[in-house]
Amino acid sequence: MVIIMEKNAQSDHIEHVEERLHDQGFKIHKSVGMEHLLLGVIGDTTKLDVRDWKVLPGVVDAYRISAPYKLVSREFKKHDTVISIKDVQIGAENLAIMAGPCSVESREQLETIASRLAGRGVRILRGGAFKPRTSPYSFQGMGEKGLQILRETADKYNMIIITEAMDKDQIELISQYADILQVGARNMQNFSFIKALGKARIPIFLKRGIAATIQEWLMSAEYILSGGNQNVMLCERGIRTFENYTRNTLDISAIPIAKKLSHLPIIADPSHGTGIRDKVIPMARAAVAAGADGLMIEVHHDPENAMSDGAQSLFPEQFDDLMDQIRIIAQVVGKTIELPETV
Amino acid sequence: MVIIMEKNAQSDHIEHVEERLHDQGFKIHKSVGMEHLLLGVIGDTTKLDVRDWKVLPGVVDAYRISAPYKLVSREFKKHDTVISIKDVQIGAENLAIMAGPCSVESREQLETIASRLAGRGVRILRGGAFKPRTSPYSFQGMGEKGLQILRETADKYNMIIITEAMDKDQIELISQYADILQVGARNMQNFSFIKALGKARIPIFLKRGIAATIQEWLMSAEYILSGGNQNVMLCERGIRTFENYTRNTLDISAIPIAKKLSHLPIIADPSHGTGIRDKVIPMARAAVAAGADGLMIEVHHDPENAMSDGAQSLFPEQFDDLMDQIRIIAQVVGKTIELPETV
Amino acid sequence: MVIIMEKNAQSDHIEHVEERLHDQGFKIHKSVGMEHLLLGVIGDTTKLDVRDWKVLPGVVDAYRISAPYKLVSREFKKHDTVISIKDVQIGAENLAIMAGPCSVESREQLETIASRLAGRGVRILRGGAFKPRTSPYSFQGMGEKGLQILRETADKYNMIIITEAMDKDQIELISQYADILQVGARNMQNFSFIKALGKARIPIFLKRGIAATIQEWLMSAEYILSGGNQNVMLCERGIRTFENYTRNTLDISAIPIAKKLSHLPIIADPSHGTGIRDKVIPMARAAVAAGADGLMIEVHHDPENAMSDGAQSLFPEQFDDLMDQIRIIAQVVGKTIELPETV
Amino acid sequence: MVIIMEKNAQSDHIEHVEERLHDQGFKIHKSVGMEHLLLGVIGDTTKLDVRDWKVLPGVVDAYRISAPYKLVSREFKKHDTVISIKDVQIGAENLAIMAGPCSVESREQLETIASRLAGRGVRILRGGAFKPRTSPYSFQGMGEKGLQILRETADKYNMIIITEAMDKDQIELISQYADILQVGARNMQNFSFIKALGKARIPIFLKRGIAATIQEWLMSAEYILSGGNQNVMLCERGIRTFENYTRNTLDISAIPIAKKLSHLPIIADPSHGTGIRDKVIPMARAAVAAGADGLMIEVHHDPENAMSDGAQSLFPEQFDDLMDQIRIIAQVVGKTIELPETV
Repeated sequence: MVIIMEKNAQSDHIEHVEERLHDQGFKIHKSVGMEHLLLGVIGDTTKLDVRDWKVLPGVVDAYRISAPYKLVSREFKKHDTVISIKDVQIGAENLAIMAGPCSVESREQLETIASRLAGRGVRILRGGAFKPRTSPYSFQGMGEKGLQILRETADKYNMIIITEAMDKDQIELISQYADILQVGARNMQNFSFIKALGKARIPIFLKRGIAATIQEWLMSAEYILSGGNQNVMLCERGIRTFENYTRNTLDISAIPIAKKLSHLPIIADPSHGTGIRDKVIPMARAAVAAGADGLMIEVHHDPENAMSDGAQSLFPEQFDDLMDQIRIIAQVVGKTIELPETV
Repeated sequence: MVIIMEKNAQSDHIEHVEERLHDQGFKIHKSVGMEHLLLGVIGDTTKLDVRDWKVLPGVVDAYRISAPYKLVSREFKKHDTVISIKDVQIGAENLAIMAGPCSVESREQLETIASRLAGRGVRILRGGAFKPRTSPYSFQGMGEKGLQILRETADKYNMIIITEAMDKDQIELISQYADILQVGARNMQNFSFIKALGKARIPIFLKRGIAATIQEWLMSAEYILSGGNQNVMLCERGIRTFENYTRNTLDISAIPIAKKLSHLPIIADPSHGTGIRDKVIPMARAAVAAGADGLMIEVHHDPENAMSDGAQSLFPEQFDDLMDQIRIIAQVVGKTIELPETV
Repeated sequence: MVIIMEKNAQSDHIEHVEERLHDQGFKIHKSVGMEHLLLGVIGDTTKLDVRDWKVLPGVVDAYRISAPYKLVSREFKKHDTVISIKDVQIGAENLAIMAGPCSVESREQLETIASRLAGRGVRILRGGAFKPRTSPYSFQGMGEKGLQILRETADKYNMIIITEAMDKDQIELISQYADILQVGARNMQNFSFIKALGKARIPIFLKRGIAATIQEWLMSAEYILSGGNQNVMLCERGIRTFENYTRNTLDISAIPIAKKLSHLPIIADPSHGTGIRDKVIPMARAAVAAGADGLMIEVHHDPENAMSDGAQSLFPEQFDDLMDQIRIIAQVVGKTIELPETV
Repeated sequence: MVIIMEKNAQSDHIEHVEERLHDQGFKIHKSVGMEHLLLGVIGDTTKLDVRDWKVLPGVVDAYRISAPYKLVSREFKKHDTVISIKDVQIGAENLAIMAGPCSVESREQLETIASRLAGRGVRILRGGAFKPRTSPYSFQGMGEKGLQILRETADKYNMIIITEAMDKDQIELISQYADILQVGARNMQNFSFIKALGKARIPIFLKRGIAATIQEWLMSAEYILSGGNQNVMLCERGIRTFENYTRNTLDISAIPIAKKLSHLPIIADPSHGTGIRDKVIPMARAAVAAGADGLMIEVHHDPENAMSDGAQSLFPEQFDDLMDQIRIIAQVVGKTIELPETV
């Protein structure tokens, strides 16, 4: 931390700040600028709240120098984290494709979609059994029955499963059925939940909150890693801005930023990021072009009758076309994608 | 809902939309504009997702006409909800003052602050025992021990207690000790939690998420009311904007808006809304001038040594001055405040 | 400026940064932290672009220490600026009330409104003759004819005039008729315009852009002061956020912040800040409670037939009531308002 | 426009709305919903301000059905606009590459950069002679001398020129030297300026304001087209959000949206969109993958010594690599790029 004292700060104000720093075990390196006195604070500043220092008398401003996260950072671990689940690898040069319906609606529905996707080479099946919904009057998911259907269907097609848990009580249940546990954007700072995920043994897919800075997102990942679970994927799924033509604004620039700051894989979700079917395709291409480690795409064979998010679900044929485009773009960014070409 | 069809929409596209509406039991009222065909949708549209209709072929746009919430609305209940807890009333003409430290840190700390506030006439004591923190390395609260201290101290000074629960597992525990259960901004759309609060018997203090629209905030309150718990207070505590001089931007206009749309009491939290001590005072005055039903203010006798949020905590003398100012402003907006004048 | 070098930065990277600083005439004060090397940059950093240093190899981050503005700052001038126009004073303990229609529509319209306002004691008449409109198809103002009507009407009622200029070519014309020249939010960073205003002799009313940080707003004022015109008022009129219930989000906290950072008077415009008539009143009260030096309020005797912004214009009776409320709140913040009480 | 009346609206309120509509020459189509009465408004609603109707007694809400723009819309003109300047074509299947330094700094500087770019096949040279700067103390550009250098250098290498005008007084001067006139983001709603551009004969490059909705951006283009100048390109260059890791958030989704709503070409500017050199490259790829009609890229042979925006300028070698990547992605979206492959 660096503390900037006012031009002509009173000496008792300067002493007060110094005393407080010494009391907390910090060393101080002073430097006298043209207009200000700077106090460089030396020691472990992880737990400091910068605001506490900003409001002290005589202080103009205070800045944190070290990032408040450690385990998730590139400084801590240079090489890309690769998460291996069965024979599927996520991270580094692999471009992971996760696809499936928003909600599991019935065995028939999932079967129809999964068989189509598996035929196309998709290895990671998504589908919601517990659904976070803005309205208490909307469809809330099939619950455990949905998880059973997910597991049976995925096994039939040699796929692995990603599905959402809505709170810490569901971690055990989800872990029984699924291979990746998704944390929704609205739960990114549900600290009871993410703390518990540090103790879980299932890989975590951590969506960025719609108003979370990249630093806050990494701090939530830090909760999980510091709890002991190293298998975390980050997911950019759109932030809230003044523009409301789209449901959210997919922050494509978060992809190269997160990759620079952290070693964790980063996946893009253009379905939630736009909320509009015909915008999902260009934004999926853009995410891969920007260097994403994977895509999560909602696909439905009959989106008009989907029980949730039909408006943003691709038709299977659209998904096929997208995959053909993605394969070409992937080469440009040094990624490989396992899907066979359509014939 | 109103659906607007393209100028020159193909007749099969029009028929398709109509068919889907009929299938779902809706009646349709057509009107032909100069440029568009309008389909007025008649029936219970609560569960519809407007986006599903926007993406149908031939459709230009679709608008929801009825608000998606019911129980929280002024249409449903004309008069202001008043929440009575022991002999304290929140809502209508009462201006509720909730004050205390960010975190309970020790018996001595809370005693010092509470005695001071009680002497000033404050009836509602705030204090956190479970603390949601951005960093896993920050102080996480005293837990149940903190709740015990809160209860003993409040009882001594004839105060009631508001404190935060971080998830549904804590509802029972909090209910044993506290009088009002606070839901933090980051949990406003933790649906497992707010669904469970509908079954709880304790009054709820629902903070607005930093990126929540007023409608989403009311929808979260609707979850609680529809579950059976009618005692909900809304709390505006700042939204996230591009301006980062302050921690958040306290959305003062949300106060008159929420009061128009809903019968629930609305409280302002200028401490979190600004994050800076010397901005708390003008913003507290502004919130009351705008018609808030109460204030939640962080106060600490030694903010420099507070274990959390010291930078935004008022010194007791500042709190006293503020109360004197608030009393005058309250008259302008037809509110009464129970605090005796300082002598 | 402080430059933070990477932990284990290569010595040639460090030397390169130092060399560049020396070349530009800066002195350097080094301090070695636990994790980083800090370079304190000593000299006049006003013209530096911090980003240039952030991207140098080996650099983690760079922070500006001194504010980039000078003349507008409290450091430069301790006491509140008071702007005197004829016998009207704006700033310090005076609460300035500016009121009138959005647009001048006719001599009769302005006469009706101005006589009503003058009778209430208002001394500053607002009215637009040149109207910035989002659509090329909307009413664009009466032009010079409108200015003539403004002047004649104001003179009749012993009022001074504030009206908007849309570009630098209009400065001379506006100066002939009006007493205060308003710069609209969309022109806050029209640098050709604000540079020219530095040479003008008319007081300037500088609205904050809807996406301007407080610092950018002060920088635009700095353009005017550095050009030689010291008579600048700041106007907060709402920022753009994700919430779209209101036209803009009136950033009430900008009022105490601007007053702390700058000596210039700050006026609030709740009419544009909310865009909705019944929200103008509570927000006007809030602005005064937060310490504003004045209000700009749109008033129309027949808002339903106003040619622009009728939806946010108060009826004269509403304005009267508001003034009675404001008078009481003004006392709390140590302001006086010249208006006589209604009888 | 559709007007929604309150459930149980008083009949005089309904009559009042109807009367006002009739007075303004509109026809009304009523439809009675389960909860509301709907008034469909038939006639030319271009000039209506929806807010005027929202605040009438008895009205719940009002929606605009027709877009407020016409000439820029796809409904008005189905096929992509192609702008031809000398032998360069912008729009449709052509991927336009505009590159050069932020500011023209000297003949030598521009010569060095232009020769390098021309050698790489770039046909459109960018460079600023008049610079809009946040601070009055920053470099403000070389002025007309810069334009002369631009012209001479471009002619030598058979390139066309794009450069910024800062107000309407500069239109004539810029038109003498340049081929495309750029309107900066801060001037997007400088209505005096864009109105004058409608009368100009030079093609216009209209940057989106950092807080402009897509609709407002199209309305500004409508000003120019309705004035008689059909040659307008749109430029997405980043919007302001809460995330401040980057200078702005490049809104990639605006690209497919603008292309759907309008026939005008849309160019992306990842240099200003990110403000950080190493983020320019992935975002440039993303923009093309999302379907942009072109890129504007800042390139400098010695960015560390650039007089403005060095931090976001690519080194020539980075630009070369980017072009090789872009060429591959362009195929995926059906675009051709004129640049020869590097050997």
